Amino acid sequence: MKVLLFVKNSPNAINTAEALEKFLENKKIQVEFFVNEPGKKPREGDYALTLVVGGDGTFLAGARFSAVRNIPIMGVNEGKFGFLTEIDRDEAFEYVEKALDGKLKPQKRMLICAFVDGKLVGHYLNDVVLSKLNLARMMEVEVFAQDEFMVRVYGDGVIISTPTGSTAYALSAGGPIIHPTMEALLFVPICPHTLSNRPMLIPPDFRIKLISNMPTFLTLDGQEGIEVSPRQEVWVEKSPFYCTLYTHPHRSFFYILREKLKWGR
Amino acid sequence: MKVLLFVKNSPNAINTAEALEKFLENKKIQVEFFVNEPGKKPREGDYALTLVVGGDGTFLAGARFSAVRNIPIMGVNEGKFGFLTEIDRDEAFEYVEKALDGKLKPQKRMLICAFVDGKLVGHYLNDVVLSKLNLARMMEVEVFAQDEFMVRVYGDGVIISTPTGSTAYALSAGGPIIHPTMEALLFVPICPHTLSNRPMLIPPDFRIKLISNMPTFLTLDGQEGIEVSPRQEVWVEKSPFYCTLYTHPHRSFFYILREKLKWGR
Amino acid sequence: MKVLLFVKNSPNAINTAEALEKFLENKKIQVEFFVNEPGKKPREGDYALTLVVGGDGTFLAGARFSAVRNIPIMGVNEGKFGFLTEIDRDEAFEYVEKALDGKLKPQKRMLICAFVDGKLVGHYLNDVVLSKLNLARMMEVEVFAQDEFMVRVYGDGVIISTPTGSTAYALSAGGPIIHPTMEALLFVPICPHTLSNRPMLIPPDFRIKLISNMPTFLTLDGQEGIEVSPRQEVWVEKSPFYCTLYTHPHRSFFYILREKLKWGR
Amino acid sequence: MKVLLFVKNSPNAINTAEALEKFLENKKIQVEFFVNEPGKKPREGDYALTLVVGGDGTFLAGARFSAVRNIPIMGVNEGKFGFLTEIDRDEAFEYVEKALDGKLKPQKRMLICAFVDGKLVGHYLNDVVLSKLNLARMMEVEVFAQDEFMVRVYGDGVIISTPTGSTAYALSAGGPIIHPTMEALLFVPICPHTLSNRPMLIPPDFRIKLISNMPTFLTLDGQEGIEVSPRQEVWVEKSPFYCTLYTHPHRSFFYILREKLKWGR
Repeated sequence: MKVLLFVKNSPNAINTAEALEKFLENKKIQVEFFVNEPGKKPREGDYALTLVVGGDGTFLAGARFSAVRNIPIMGVNEGKFGFLTEIDRDEAFEYVEKALDGKLKPQKRMLICAFVDGKLVGHYLNDVVLSKLNLARMMEVEVFAQDEFMVRVYGDGVIISTPTGSTAYALSAGGPIIHPTMEALLFVPICPHTLSNRPMLIPPDFRIKLISNMPTFLTLDGQEGIEVSPRQEVWVEKSPFYCTLYTHPHRSFFYILREKLKWGR
Repeated sequence: MKVLLFVKNSPNAINTAEALEKFLENKKIQVEFFVNEPGKKPREGDYALTLVVGGDGTFLAGARFSAVRNIPIMGVNEGKFGFLTEIDRDEAFEYVEKALDGKLKPQKRMLICAFVDGKLVGHYLNDVVLSKLNLARMMEVEVFAQDEFMVRVYGDGVIISTPTGSTAYALSAGGPIIHPTMEALLFVPICPHTLSNRPMLIPPDFRIKLISNMPTFLTLDGQEGIEVSPRQEVWVEKSPFYCTLYTHPHRSFFYILREKLKWGR
Repeated sequence: MKVLLFVKNSPNAINTAEALEKFLENKKIQVEFFVNEPGKKPREGDYALTLVVGGDGTFLAGARFSAVRNIPIMGVNEGKFGFLTEIDRDEAFEYVEKALDGKLKPQKRMLICAFVDGKLVGHYLNDVVLSKLNLARMMEVEVFAQDEFMVRVYGDGVIISTPTGSTAYALSAGGPIIHPTMEALLFVPICPHTLSNRPMLIPPDFRIKLISNMPTFLTLDGQEGIEVSPRQEVWVEKSPFYCTLYTHPHRSFFYILREKLKWGR
Repeated sequence: MKVLLFVKNSPNAINTAEALEKFLENKKIQVEFFVNEPGKKPREGDYALTLVVGGDGTFLAGARFSAVRNIPIMGVNEGKFGFLTEIDRDEAFEYVEKALDGKLKPQKRMLICAFVDGKLVGHYLNDVVLSKLNLARMMEVEVFAQDEFMVRVYGDGVIISTPTGSTAYALSAGGPIIHPTMEALLFVPICPHTLSNRPMLIPPDFRIKLISNMPTFLTLDGQEGIEVSPRQEVWVEKSPFYCTLYTHPHRSFFYILREKLKWGR
């Protein structure tokens, strides 16, 4: 049995990861230790689990690697916020062992994938954002769903988010919270210039198409970015892959919302 | 074959309904003509279709009658707004005929049902609202999902809406638009006193429980109302019944949003 | 010198007020002790200060009594929230003495006054709300500013708030926060049925006029209420009176926002 | 008497401006014809009026030139939207003449000015925006008012707007509408990461100070931009200059809101 340690490049995270490495090796479990850095990827392997040690940024990178390889994932928080990395350091040893022993029930979370001019860009757990370039005053974009014209947005950009991503950038832009076990595409305009624009929930089997006359910028999971030329088509749809996620066994989504987002406080 | 004409009590609606009655009787189709009034219900019968003539209010009443009897429904607009009664008078004759001939494909829409202290109140296409009494300064309510504490709301009330109801009262209270073919429970606090309350999408198989220490008021589809005593439990969950709805064959949900709600204008 | 103790009818508040009474009498200051109850008013007198002991509700009642009599006011918190009653019990003795000695600088806060069909209803520190009756589905109201048509609102109601009231009901309905030393009328629609309604700041010298075709309900400072008949005119304008308020000498408005409303948290 | 024609670089605008030029020269009024282009400025002169022909972008540039020179300004709409350029081409001849004859009453509108590290950047009619660079995930900024800490914002940026600018970018970011004759600083966070951030109205005599640890971008009136280094202080305050604006004599601010922004529709 082999575990991928997917670690944030920070002293605390590496320290915690090393403790977990020892713990696993004592149990005769092989460990691949990977420190996450831009442009680098872990070695391929037959991993039973990806164990992320870090914050939400590290988790998203780990999830992108793992989901398309059908590796389940668990997150240990060594970041500031840790909305996705639900397990605290103290609890990690117990829960990793339980997950590997099949004693925890993972959650399936949908991903979205993005295409530019028909070419796959990747699969993402949080969101795909098309936005104006820095110096532009605004972006105009036509949005289609299932090839039908949906709405024209004048503003800073548009977000297409998964339910998991609904508590990330989409929330800042005014979107609703979506329970992460649901399947839906969340469309949120960013700073729209019309008074009447609202977030919209779109069925997960719809393909969303975005076309702008201007040069725009595509941001994936808030981490990867590519420039999009005028009239290039950006498609966003549900990915065939899922993220298999070991959430905290004793803290529900609602609990984490109240604690970490101060929901309802 | 028998059709239920479910008609708004207004001269225009009755006039249109009479024309439709003649049209159907010429085709040897029996017609039950019912004028919608508070406290009255149509005669039971083996109806192939409920044909609503009126506005959204009449449609909601017609849908409540029809959904639990598995009668499909079509709406002809003789109201001011007509978000649900998608068919115009001119088109009604053609589309009714097509629907009865099986040439139109209906849409399935989920309903929610409400219980007070375990006793069923009814099945609703739009929404269930628990709100403060007029003279009260505010309502405090505890919200549970699957018996787990979700959030405490201080405010004017809370809305539990279907996707169909997302464009009704829930939208006024700041909720997102949900494509009506989806299945979800939309939770929207009404004028919450905390800065951090947000609408939430909850899986359709969750039961939501509302408990307040105060006397409150339960409004169903904006039409029926009952007083709820302090500590009485209100449950809201997905109904086992669906509304089988003949939508406009050539106007999509997005089109109607743009035209009738001025979405994105 | 005479002080009006304006006290919430709760054991804690009365206890604190009695301690303050003794403290003042030891200093040869006369005290009028008034327990706030619906329908009752303090005895008239030549008061140098109204000392409210209670929460925001008691404070609003005390402010309505005091502002029109040009009596300055200070609030000692014995309520749950205490946004307006800024002084804690421990500090009250010191700050009351300083206020009476002229060593604290009070803040002037504007009030609004309401008229129904030209007849004055009263002067209010927080807000005037016109809303639908409980069983009505919605309210339609025409809003005029300086006799010019401004906007028609379909919804649950409309709020006209002072800057002080911007952190009360208006905030729940989606309004902005206004620094309380400013002068402005804040107009906020409650759950408007159109997507494009937004809060608006109106110059303090404008008279706002509200006319509805329906029976509606006028709520003043969230405490007093009167029914308004169809077509009766409700006017709201800046009051000629001010509330002269001793705020906490060491806690700014921003501090209280962050602490009590969790602003920016 | 001399008039500055401040013209958008578009065939329609230049055509309209040429007609106005002839009209004025027939009345023995001197005309300085300036086509607005980035980096260019009109010749200095003793202008009785700046007559902008174009859209809101051209108007803002014209207003920046005119306000600091105490030249009154009027806008003739040859843009797409024309919220600020209130006069239509047909009416321009009559109203220009009336303005020059002193038969129209102009409106005073406040401006704001921005400083970086104590050095004046300029005076602006709409807004000053501090935002993250394109590739940054977010911006963290500390906001001070009168040197007192106000709030820390995590998000895409912050807007400080005048009342005139409240219907521009600030509105897209969720701000209220402010009647343009008022004086206030409007603070609006852009896509804040905390649930509890709200727009705030700040007295016009307060100085707002923004400090970020990151490189950020300062955008002035949506037109000029400069990079700001980490820890550089950005100050925004009310300008000593006013824009003296000839608004449409028969269309109120509320009318224009309803017509051009579809307010309340």
